[in-house]
Amino acid sequence: METKFIDEEIKYTGLELAPHWIYRKFHLQGDAMIAFCGECEVKLTEMVDIEDVINNEPIYSKNMLSFIIEHFNIGLVEGVTRQRMLICIIKEVIEQLLTPQSSLLTRKGDDLFIDDKKLSVSIATKSLTSVLIHVGININPEGAPINAIGLDFLKIHDIKGFANNIMLKYSQEINDIILASTKVTGR
Amino acid sequence: METKFIDEEIKYTGLELAPHWIYRKFHLQGDAMIAFCGECEVKLTEMVDIEDVINNEPIYSKNMLSFIIEHFNIGLVEGVTRQRMLICIIKEVIEQLLTPQSSLLTRKGDDLFIDDKKLSVSIATKSLTSVLIHVGININPEGAPINAIGLDFLKIHDIKGFANNIMLKYSQEINDIILASTKVTGR
Amino acid sequence: METKFIDEEIKYTGLELAPHWIYRKFHLQGDAMIAFCGECEVKLTEMVDIEDVINNEPIYSKNMLSFIIEHFNIGLVEGVTRQRMLICIIKEVIEQLLTPQSSLLTRKGDDLFIDDKKLSVSIATKSLTSVLIHVGININPEGAPINAIGLDFLKIHDIKGFANNIMLKYSQEINDIILASTKVTGR
Amino acid sequence: METKFIDEEIKYTGLELAPHWIYRKFHLQGDAMIAFCGECEVKLTEMVDIEDVINNEPIYSKNMLSFIIEHFNIGLVEGVTRQRMLICIIKEVIEQLLTPQSSLLTRKGDDLFIDDKKLSVSIATKSLTSVLIHVGININPEGAPINAIGLDFLKIHDIKGFANNIMLKYSQEINDIILASTKVTGR
Amino acid sequence: METKFIDEEIKYTGLELAPHWIYRKFHLQGDAMIAFCGECEVKLTEMVDIEDVINNEPIYSKNMLSFIIEHFNIGLVEGVTRQRMLICIIKEVIEQLLTPQSSLLTRKGDDLFIDDKKLSVSIATKSLTSVLIHVGININPEGAPINAIGLDFLKIHDIKGFANNIMLKYSQEINDIILASTKVTGR
Amino acid sequence: METKFIDEEIKYTGLELAPHWIYRKFHLQGDAMIAFCGECEVKLTEMVDIEDVINNEPIYSKNMLSFIIEHFNIGLVEGVTRQRMLICIIKEVIEQLLTPQSSLLTRKGDDLFIDDKKLSVSIATKSLTSVLIHVGININPEGAPINAIGLDFLKIHDIKGFANNIMLKYSQEINDIILASTKVTGR
Repeated sequence: METKFIDEEIKYTGLELAPHWIYRKFHLQGDAMIAFCGECEVKLTEMVDIEDVINNEPIYSKNMLSFIIEHFNIGLVEGVTRQRMLICIIKEVIEQLLTPQSSLLTRKGDDLFIDDKKLSVSIATKSLTSVLIHVGININPEGAPINAIGLDFLKIHDIKGFANNIMLKYSQEINDIILASTKVTGR
Repeated sequence: METKFIDEEIKYTGLELAPHWIYRKFHLQGDAMIAFCGECEVKLTEMVDIEDVINNEPIYSKNMLSFIIEHFNIGLVEGVTRQRMLICIIKEVIEQLLTPQSSLLTRKGDDLFIDDKKLSVSIATKSLTSVLIHVGININPEGAPINAIGLDFLKIHDIKGFANNIMLKYSQEINDIILASTKVTGR
Repeated sequence: METKFIDEEIKYTGLELAPHWIYRKFHLQGDAMIAFCGECEVKLTEMVDIEDVINNEPIYSKNMLSFIIEHFNIGLVEGVTRQRMLICIIKEVIEQLLTPQSSLLTRKGDDLFIDDKKLSVSIATKSLTSVLIHVGININPEGAPINAIGLDFLKIHDIKGFANNIMLKYSQEINDIILASTKVTGR
Repeated sequence: METKFIDEEIKYTGLELAPHWIYRKFHLQGDAMIAFCGECEVKLTEMVDIEDVINNEPIYSKNMLSFIIEHFNIGLVEGVTRQRMLICIIKEVIEQLLTPQSSLLTRKGDDLFIDDKKLSVSIATKSLTSVLIHVGININPEGAPINAIGLDFLKIHDIKGFANNIMLKYSQEINDIILASTKVTGR
Repeated sequence: METKFIDEEIKYTGLELAPHWIYRKFHLQGDAMIAFCGECEVKLTEMVDIEDVINNEPIYSKNMLSFIIEHFNIGLVEGVTRQRMLICIIKEVIEQLLTPQSSLLTRKGDDLFIDDKKLSVSIATKSLTSVLIHVGININPEGAPINAIGLDFLKIHDIKGFANNIMLKYSQEINDIILASTKVTGR
Repeated sequence: METKFIDEEIKYTGLELAPHWIYRKFHLQGDAMIAFCGECEVKLTEMVDIEDVINNEPIYSKNMLSFIIEHFNIGLVEGVTRQRMLICIIKEVIEQLLTPQSSLLTRKGDDLFIDDKKLSVSIATKSLTSVLIHVGININPEGAPINAIGLDFLKIHDIKGFANNIMLKYSQEINDIILASTKVTGR
């Protein structure tokens, strides 16, 4: 699984969560994960989360760290479980950067919160040949339609290092999970 | 998914990680999760983890909280991913019980450590019709062949409440993951 | 699996057999089944059954009881088998309402007939994340392009009770099938 | 899918529900279905239905028509759904042979009853490469540990013709189901 | 699996690699394979091979023998493996027609070459309900944007007999593969 | 996918075709392929090929090059298709070593022949977590119960180089197949 931090700023609109977007745009083939920063504005018309559409909840953040992942040849339930693992990994990476007294980071499903302020957005969906995952972590959530918080507040400023650490840990975790399935006697 | 804390003490030997053991013994049918306490002694001959067999690493703990889970009709890779989610949930539950200054709990794959002392053991395997998961958390790791630590040290004494909290959170997480796969427009 | 009888009249045009239509319109999430009454007119352009398109056989019925079902995370062959089970259940429910001398109800695949007159239409198809099933049972088949018959002729007038009975039996059957897969020793 | 009525009498003990039993003994390769008559005695030790083992319910019938089916390369939930379809088909075939006034045949899951007397037994299970299905229909249920009834009572005496009709209809139904999955536009 | 050689000339543009194209146009239902001859011109906009799009490599051949296959209810990795088997079969059929001294036919993945000149093009992709495979073998590669060669050069002039031989061998191979999965004791 | 030529001689008896045999014995974890030389004697009691058991055809060869492969988390039909690809690859590797006039090597399913003499044996089967493949190529078929031929006759004496070439090509082909599934627009 290849990973890459994209240095150029990219506005995330939801259209990027498309099959082979990573391959077409950055030429990483197969299972891949990229990260980039930029404004995030997902209108209801581009939203794959029907719950958000029903609740009329578009997404906005002035500056967000986005991860996009494409896993081929797996089902959506497995893809959602991997998405949740990624959220746990992000939580663990942030916790290692926080001082003990600040650690009020909580996870509810695929969302991260700090003191009831939303730190992240995330969705996983299915294409004909792959599962697609987006996780966005607010850097500066200015303009968000809900009570939000960002990495700026947490004094996490080396976004590229932070992102690369997460991508390394996630790709190792997935490899390790697959390997773990090959070392056990069946019952 | 039904869950149940078994009040009677049960020695875990590895043989309990068998298809329909939960159904035959406790009459919970279908996807189910149980928890119980007792001595843990898994000899190499009963071990499904071939890595441990190769490395000649049997398991012993004087008193352990064991979870056994059976998920039907899923593949092993998906089962291992669920096992990892469970480890993350256990970590989150423990962290909420710890004081800020004590939080040196770390996860490496499916293992939990406190200051490089091993808190848990875990394995996931496959039967003809199900995935089987065992997670054991030391209460008192006396007699362990490696450097280990237990819930006693963490001053977690309400084992039943602790176990029920974990089982509730895990069963909710799995339901929520499956539900999340039903709310997205495909791409 | 949630079920719901929709009291408002809805014209079935084929467009309703769409992923998440039940969720978007009636807010039932996950595996779900709804029933409603209304005119049925499926033009060739909206038809998922290519056999009917090839044979130039559009569908029309003045008043029809329609069931729409969405099952997530299963394959199409399994979905078609469930569709056939539903047809068998509908047959059984109707037979219990008929007098012995009237029982000339026959099933051919996914079609029900009374004395060679067609009582029902049905199709199952696949979306990116689900299987979609439509079963329509004529109430008053006036205007049908083929020799058809309806529930009116069978003196079944409590359509809502009839539909709710079918939905209850079908959802129980599916739960029971899944549960039956969890109680057997593998061979 | 090959089918064959075996003229020789065979006692069914449960051991016959084994992978490749049909292939080894009757040389029908691949998906196959056979039927035969004989005494039926399944002891608890040979029973794959754990529910029956828990409830201490062995099976006995003096003379039974048994069907054994092996479907390769499908999952158990799909296999159980096919088993239920077979029960529906058997019910339909019997109903066509009954006089209107006698038709009190009812289906509960995978069981058939006549006036609350049990007509059939059935189970579906999984091997490493296949799903195995057994359906037994009492001819003469003498000695059954429960209230049972048989084809003798229904005056169905041409057992071979009856069995061949069921096998023909079931194999056509399965072919038709698979074919139905190939004629629809996805949504 | 039905197969058919289409006598009329058909220009292959890439649009023919669509779900149910064979069924809609030639009324072969289910798994099917057809062959036809004609000009081949696949523009980048109709290309499913993103690698070719990225490399800006449209396809042209003045006269090509095209095979189109649709396999229902299998995954894409399995479909690609079948595509490769087909390439091996085509290679074997050509080799039997060549004189010993001419045999410089080589396979690289899903491509066939003669002395570094490209003899074939091929792709496999996924629809909602099937895997679609195209293999094109140049008859006269005039106008090809790369160094190409055709069956004309190999003095293979009975294209219909050649195509029918390949279709027979491929459909037998697939049947034989499925049958081979039903004759082994699991381990 | 790791590959390794084992220099020590190993007698192949059929028992080696067991889940995790490669991992336990040679410590290659995950998808893996090994090759070794030695006597081959598979008695009917160790045979997974039921067709051979029915036909009473044990296997013997005085010296054979054996490949054993374990692929995790795939189905048996896909495994058999990979086995056939491997046979095609072996055929291609041998053909490159033959002089033009000697090339009478033919493939029938998973068997290779030279002038109607059998060069190879092969089988693919399923364990709880993997597909297992054995391919044996006679070096010296002395003692074979059928008309057989070996690599000695073909003057292929660098068995290790030959085996390593095959293992390299096969592992590349599998990687390439999986990668090919990630580069296409769905239809």
